[in-house]
Amino acid sequence: FSPVKKCSRGILERLNANEVVIGDGGFVFALEKRGYVKAGPWTPEAAVTHPEAVRQLHREFLRAGSNVMQAFTFYASDDKLENRGQTLKITGAQVNEAACDLAREVANEGDALMAGGVCQTPSYLSCKSETEVKAIFKKQLDVFIKKNVDFLIAEYFEHVEEAEWAVQVLKMSGKPVAASMCIGPQGDMHGVPPGECAVRLVKAGAQIVGVNCHFDPLTCVEAVKMMKAAVEKAGLKAHYMVQPLAYHTPDCNCQGFIDLPEFPFALEPRILTRWDMHKYAREAYNAGIRFIGGCCGFEPYHIRAVAEELAPERGFLPQASDKHGLWGAALEMHTKPWVRARARRDYWENIHPASGRPKCPSLSSPEGWGVTKGHTELLQHREATTAQEIHKL
Amino acid sequence: FSPVKKCSRGILERLNANEVVIGDGGFVFALEKRGYVKAGPWTPEAAVTHPEAVRQLHREFLRAGSNVMQAFTFYASDDKLENRGQTLKITGAQVNEAACDLAREVANEGDALMAGGVCQTPSYLSCKSETEVKAIFKKQLDVFIKKNVDFLIAEYFEHVEEAEWAVQVLKMSGKPVAASMCIGPQGDMHGVPPGECAVRLVKAGAQIVGVNCHFDPLTCVEAVKMMKAAVEKAGLKAHYMVQPLAYHTPDCNCQGFIDLPEFPFALEPRILTRWDMHKYAREAYNAGIRFIGGCCGFEPYHIRAVAEELAPERGFLPQASDKHGLWGAALEMHTKPWVRARARRDYWENIHPASGRPKCPSLSSPEGWGVTKGHTELLQHREATTAQEIHKL
Amino acid sequence: FSPVKKCSRGILERLNANEVVIGDGGFVFALEKRGYVKAGPWTPEAAVTHPEAVRQLHREFLRAGSNVMQAFTFYASDDKLENRGQTLKITGAQVNEAACDLAREVANEGDALMAGGVCQTPSYLSCKSETEVKAIFKKQLDVFIKKNVDFLIAEYFEHVEEAEWAVQVLKMSGKPVAASMCIGPQGDMHGVPPGECAVRLVKAGAQIVGVNCHFDPLTCVEAVKMMKAAVEKAGLKAHYMVQPLAYHTPDCNCQGFIDLPEFPFALEPRILTRWDMHKYAREAYNAGIRFIGGCCGFEPYHIRAVAEELAPERGFLPQASDKHGLWGAALEMHTKPWVRARARRDYWENIHPASGRPKCPSLSSPEGWGVTKGHTELLQHREATTAQEIHKL
Amino acid sequence: FSPVKKCSRGILERLNANEVVIGDGGFVFALEKRGYVKAGPWTPEAAVTHPEAVRQLHREFLRAGSNVMQAFTFYASDDKLENRGQTLKITGAQVNEAACDLAREVANEGDALMAGGVCQTPSYLSCKSETEVKAIFKKQLDVFIKKNVDFLIAEYFEHVEEAEWAVQVLKMSGKPVAASMCIGPQGDMHGVPPGECAVRLVKAGAQIVGVNCHFDPLTCVEAVKMMKAAVEKAGLKAHYMVQPLAYHTPDCNCQGFIDLPEFPFALEPRILTRWDMHKYAREAYNAGIRFIGGCCGFEPYHIRAVAEELAPERGFLPQASDKHGLWGAALEMHTKPWVRARARRDYWENIHPASGRPKCPSLSSPEGWGVTKGHTELLQHREATTAQEIHKL
Repeated sequence: FSPVKKCSRGILERLNANEVVIGDGGFVFALEKRGYVKAGPWTPEAAVTHPEAVRQLHREFLRAGSNVMQAFTFYASDDKLENRGQTLKITGAQVNEAACDLAREVANEGDALMAGGVCQTPSYLSCKSETEVKAIFKKQLDVFIKKNVDFLIAEYFEHVEEAEWAVQVLKMSGKPVAASMCIGPQGDMHGVPPGECAVRLVKAGAQIVGVNCHFDPLTCVEAVKMMKAAVEKAGLKAHYMVQPLAYHTPDCNCQGFIDLPEFPFALEPRILTRWDMHKYAREAYNAGIRFIGGCCGFEPYHIRAVAEELAPERGFLPQASDKHGLWGAALEMHTKPWVRARARRDYWENIHPASGRPKCPSLSSPEGWGVTKGHTELLQHREATTAQEIHKL
Repeated sequence: FSPVKKCSRGILERLNANEVVIGDGGFVFALEKRGYVKAGPWTPEAAVTHPEAVRQLHREFLRAGSNVMQAFTFYASDDKLENRGQTLKITGAQVNEAACDLAREVANEGDALMAGGVCQTPSYLSCKSETEVKAIFKKQLDVFIKKNVDFLIAEYFEHVEEAEWAVQVLKMSGKPVAASMCIGPQGDMHGVPPGECAVRLVKAGAQIVGVNCHFDPLTCVEAVKMMKAAVEKAGLKAHYMVQPLAYHTPDCNCQGFIDLPEFPFALEPRILTRWDMHKYAREAYNAGIRFIGGCCGFEPYHIRAVAEELAPERGFLPQASDKHGLWGAALEMHTKPWVRARARRDYWENIHPASGRPKCPSLSSPEGWGVTKGHTELLQHREATTAQEIHKL
Repeated sequence: FSPVKKCSRGILERLNANEVVIGDGGFVFALEKRGYVKAGPWTPEAAVTHPEAVRQLHREFLRAGSNVMQAFTFYASDDKLENRGQTLKITGAQVNEAACDLAREVANEGDALMAGGVCQTPSYLSCKSETEVKAIFKKQLDVFIKKNVDFLIAEYFEHVEEAEWAVQVLKMSGKPVAASMCIGPQGDMHGVPPGECAVRLVKAGAQIVGVNCHFDPLTCVEAVKMMKAAVEKAGLKAHYMVQPLAYHTPDCNCQGFIDLPEFPFALEPRILTRWDMHKYAREAYNAGIRFIGGCCGFEPYHIRAVAEELAPERGFLPQASDKHGLWGAALEMHTKPWVRARARRDYWENIHPASGRPKCPSLSSPEGWGVTKGHTELLQHREATTAQEIHKL
Repeated sequence: FSPVKKCSRGILERLNANEVVIGDGGFVFALEKRGYVKAGPWTPEAAVTHPEAVRQLHREFLRAGSNVMQAFTFYASDDKLENRGQTLKITGAQVNEAACDLAREVANEGDALMAGGVCQTPSYLSCKSETEVKAIFKKQLDVFIKKNVDFLIAEYFEHVEEAEWAVQVLKMSGKPVAASMCIGPQGDMHGVPPGECAVRLVKAGAQIVGVNCHFDPLTCVEAVKMMKAAVEKAGLKAHYMVQPLAYHTPDCNCQGFIDLPEFPFALEPRILTRWDMHKYAREAYNAGIRFIGGCCGFEPYHIRAVAEELAPERGFLPQASDKHGLWGAALEMHTKPWVRARARRDYWENIHPASGRPKCPSLSSPEGWGVTKGHTELLQHREATTAQEIHKL
C-alpha cells in the first residue's frame, strides 16, 4: 500500500486535451491571516509545525474546484530559511517533505494533481553564481522527486535569467515543468519583455509558461497574452498559466504590488470580489489560457468563482458550490426582501462597490526605487534590518 | 473521565476583576468564504457536516487571542433551518450539539470559555406569539444545558422585545447571560434607543449587554457607550460587550450593513485593516467595554490585532503573535529595502489605503425600505423567493 | 435728474407677498478668479480701481436672475482695509461709495434692489468694545444712507453678539435689515445654536434672518430651518434668507470651509454643478425660505440655475436663460450624437460626476483649532504674518 | 488715425527669439458660465450682441498675462451658425468683424498680439468637398485680412485632412499660421498619430503646430512632444503650441472630454487648481513648447498661474499678480492663523484636494461610439435633434 496515489491524468494530458485546469490560491497570504505565516520572512514552516492548518486550506481549495494541490514550499530553500529569522531549526528539506505529504493527502481526496515548486532565491539577488543558485533548486528538487510529485512549477521569478536556471534544473527530473514569472506587461526587472521571457523559458524546457503574483488578474492576463503571441511568433509551442493577485493594482509600476504603499498590511480595500473573479476567469479563458489559478489574496471563494464561471466549459460545478447560489441566487432565501431582490446576475455584475473610506484615495503612488539584482541595497543578509538602517531607508 | 473540562474562571469572575475578555470573530462570513456556509440562508449545518472546518476556525481564533469559543449555533433554530432550504434533514438540536462539542474541544486547548447562543427568529418577524418564540429559545437552551456551556449569549436582535424574551428564557438556566443587539446609535428597528434597550435587557436579567454585527467598530462602540450611560443613569449595574463588523459602514442608516448595496457579496473594499482594529480595541477599552470581539468580516488576524493592542493591559500576547511582528516589525526581514522601511508603527498608523477602484465611490446610498416586524413583506416563508417576486422587488 | 431710481417694490413688500427674491453670488471669490481681489486680505478696493470688472459681474448676476445687487462692500471697513496690506490710500468710505454707485447703476437696468452690507470686523475679534465696533458699522451706514440703498444686510458674522450690534446700528436707518450669519447647524463660534441666534437677531430688529457662506447649500438650508423653527416657537415673525457656498462641504466642522485644507486655493473639486443648484433651490423653497442667493463660489450660471428651478413659482425665466436650454435641452444642437443624447433632465439629475483625480480622497480632515474671539492667536494685526510666525503655526 | 495699432513684435519674431508667448483661456466655456454662450451650439454671436462681456474677458486674460488676444470667432462660420438654431440673423462675417475689433481694442491696451482663427466645420463632418470646405475658411479669412490680424490660427481639428485644408487657405494671406488639433497621444479621429499630423501640417505651411482642447494639460503636452519629435525626425522646423483643457481627463479615450459622461455640464470636480497649472506650465516649457495657453475651462486665474510659473524665464509678472501672492503668500494677511500657516509653496504644491463628493467616483467610463467623419450619425443638420431621435440615441 502506498500513500502516493497519482491522479489518473497528468497536467499535460489535460492541457493537451484543451481542458481547463484550475489552480489554487495563495497560501502565504491566506495563512498569514489565519495566524500561521509571518509577513516579512513569508516562509512556510507551518507545513511542519501546523499541518492541520495547511491541510485545511488545501481542502478548501479542493472543494472550491482546484485541480492542483501545490505543495506549500514557497521560499522553502535553506538560504531563505536561514536568513529570515528562523529560530526553530527546521530545514528546507523538512518543510518540503511535509508540504508534499500534505498536498498529496488532499489531492488524493479529489480530482487534483500535486505539484512541487521552487521560486526566486536570496542567493540570486545577492549575485551568487549560476552553480550556487542551481544547487539550491536541486536540493528542493531532490525532495520533489522522492515524493513523486505530478509536475513541477518554477514560479515567482522577477528575473528571467534565474527562472531559466530553475527550469533547467527541474527539467532534469523528466517531469512536466511550468514556469511562471511575477511580472506584468512591462517585463522583468531588467526590462526583458514578457514575450521574450516566455520564449526563453520555453526554450529552456518549460511546457507551460505564464505569470503569477504581483499584479491584478486583468493585468496578468495581458502579460500572458504577450507571452503567447511571442511564443507563437517564434514558432514554438507551449501551454499557458496565470495565477494573479486577488488585489486591484491599476496603480502599480513594473515591480507590482510590492511597491504599493499598502503592501502588505493595508491591501484590504483592493481585494477582488467574486464577481471580479468571474470577469477574470472569462478573460483568461478567452485569451487561450487553460491553467487558471490565483496567488496572494485568493481565498477559496475566489477560486470557486473561477470554477463557477467556467462551469459551462468544464461541464460541472465544484463541490463548494453546494454552498453558493450562482450569481447570488441563494439570496432568494434571505430574511429581508430588499436583499432577496439582489438574487440576480445583473445586480452583481454591474455593482461598483464603495470603499466606506471617504478619506482614502482610489489610487496610490507606488514607490519606484528602481533597484534590482546587483544593487547593494538588495544584497540579502541573515540579520533583520536594524532601527538605524530603517531610519536611513 | 469527561470531555467537558471547564475553564477555571468564569466570564463574570473575569469581568468583575476588570479583565479584558476577547471574543471571537464571525463564523458565518468566514466559513462562507471557505466554502461551508451558504450566503442567503446563513445556517450553521457545517457543524454537523464539516466539523474539521469549524474546528479549524475555532483554533485560529483561539491562537489569535480569543477567550470565548462561541458554539457555531447562529440561526440554528428549527424554524430557521426549516424555512431556509435545508434539504439535509438535520435538526436544530443536532447542529447545536455538534457545535457545542467542537467549541468545547477547542476551548479546552487554551484559556477559553465556551458559550452557547441564540439569535432572532423568523417566528418573531412573522408575528408569532411570545409563547411560540420562547419555545424556540427553550429548545436551544436545552442543548446548551446538556452540554454544560460556560455562559449564554442572546445576540443579533433587531428588536429589543424579542431580545428580552430570549434573556428571560436563558436566565432559567442559572448561567450568566450576555445580551447583544445588532443596532447602532439610532436604536432598534422600532426606534427604541440603545440606552433604553440596555436598561430593559439588564432588567430582564442580562449581566452583560452590548451590540454586535450590523455596524463598523467605532459606530458599535458609540452605541455601547450610550447603553452604558443609560444603565448607569438608571442606577443599574452591568458589564459591556461589543462585537462589531469588520467592514467600514459610515454610510449606513439604522438597519446597518444589510441595507448597503454591497451586502453581502461586494463588501471587500470595506474590510478593516489590522491597524483599524488597533484603534477599535483602544476605543472600546477606553469606553469601559471589557468583552471585546468581532462579528461578520472578522478574520483571525483581526482578533489578533485586538489582542496585540491590549497586550499592555492584559500582560501577554496571543499565541499567533509568534507569527506577527508588532506594528509590522517583521518587515525588517523583507527582501526589498523599501518594504523594510515600513517596519514601524507610524507608517501603518497613518496610512490611508487606496481602493484600487477609481470607478467606484467611497460611500453608497443604502436602501431604506423602512419595513420591520409587522410588515407583510417580512413574514418569513419556507419557500425561496420566486423569480416573479424578485422582479416585483 | 437723479441717478438713484428706486425699484418700485421693496424687499419686504416682495417677501410679504411670498415672492421669491433671488440674491446674487459671491463677488470676492469670483473677482479673485478674474484677477481683481487678493485672496488673504479679501478686500473690495476693486470697486474704486476697476469699476468695469465689478459692473460686469453685477450685470451677469442680473441677467442670471438676481433681484438684489449687493454693493461690493465686503470687509470695506477702515479697520480691515488698514490691517490688510492696502498700499493704495483708499478709504472705506471711498470703496463703499463707489460700490453703491455701481450696484445702483446695474440694479436700474433690471428688476433689482440695491443693498448695502456690513460684516464682521477685525475689531470685534480683537476684543474691542461694543462702542468701538458699532462706530465702524455706523461709518459704513452713513454711506449707505447717503447713497439711499434699498435695504441693508448684516452678513458673515461668526458671533451672534457682533451680529446683534450690527443690526442695532443698521436699524437706526429706518431701512429694512437682513441679518445673516456664517454658521451651520452647530451654531456660532461660541456654541450658540442657530435657533437662538435667529431669535436674538429678530429681537434686535432684523426683519430677515438666515445664513450665508461657510457651508454648502443643503447644510445652510438645514441651519435656516432650525432658525425658522426657533423663531416661530418664540412667537416671533421673520423672513428667511440663505446664501451658501457653491462648494460641497460635508466634511466641515463648526467653522466651515475655512478649516478645510483646500481653503482657499484648491476648492475646485468641490464646486457645485448647476444641477446641484436645482436641488438647492427646491430645498430652500420647500423650507419656506424666500430670499435665496449665493456666496463664495457662486458664478452667474449657478444663480441662473436657481432661477430656472424656481421659474414655475416665479412665472418667468431670467434673461440669461436665452443662452441655456433647460435641463440641458440645447444639447440637442450639439455636433456629436452621444452628447445630443444627454439633452434630458433625468440624465443630469442623476449624474455622479467623477473628479478625474484618482489620487485624491473624497473627504478631508478639517483643521480644528477651536480658537475664536478672545484667543490671542486671533488678535488681528496690521502686519502680514512673518515667516517665523508661519513656521511656528 | 487708425484703431489698428499693431503690437511691435510679431509672433514669429518672439518665438524665434525663444520667448514664451502666453495664450489666452477658453472663451466659449467661460462665457457660457457668465451667461453669454449657449452650450450645445457653442456659437460666438455674443461678440455682436454683448461686446462688453467679451471685452471684459479679453481684459482679464490680458491682465493675467496673455500675449495673444484671440478673436472670439470659434465656430463662427456660416454653415455652423445656420445649423445651430440661430434665430437672430447674424452672419459669420458680422461676428468675425465684431470679434476682431474687440480683440484688437484690448490687445492695444497691453503687450498682446491679435489673432483670427478658424476651426473644424460641420461641412467637413458632412462629407462636403475640399472646395466647399475651403470656401468656408476663405470667407472667414477675408474678414481677418480686412481687420489686419497679426497672425492666424487653425485650431480644434479632429481630422488632420481638414486641418491641412485650413492651413492651405490661411497661408494665402501671407501671415504667420499656427495649426492646432484637438487630439491626444492616440492621434486624430482616423488614427493618424500626432507626429504624422504635425509633419503634414508643417508641410502644409504651418509655422507653429500643436494641440488644443479635448485633453488635460499633461496629456496635451505629451501629444505635442510626439509632434515635436516627429517634426524634428523629418528634418523640418516649427514652433510648438499647447492650449489644453483646464479639466483633469485621465479617463478619456481618443475623442477626449466630449466622451466623458460629465461633458459639458458636470465637469466641475475636474477643474484644475492654479497649482496644477504651475506644473503644466513647467512641463510645457521643459518640453520646448513656447506658445503656452489654455482652452475650455481656463479662467483668468489659470492663465495667471502659467505666467507666474514662467516669470523667472520671462523676467516679469503679469499685472494681475498685484492681486495674488505667489504660491499663496498673501494668505499671510488672512484672519485665521491656520490659514496664514498655508502661505507657503510646499503646502499648495503637495495638496491632494478632496472632492467633497463621497458618492462619486474618481474616474468615469467614457462613451466610445467610435463614429467619426463619414458615419451617417455625424451628418450635421440644421434642425435640433427631436425627442424621438434622442430616445433612439
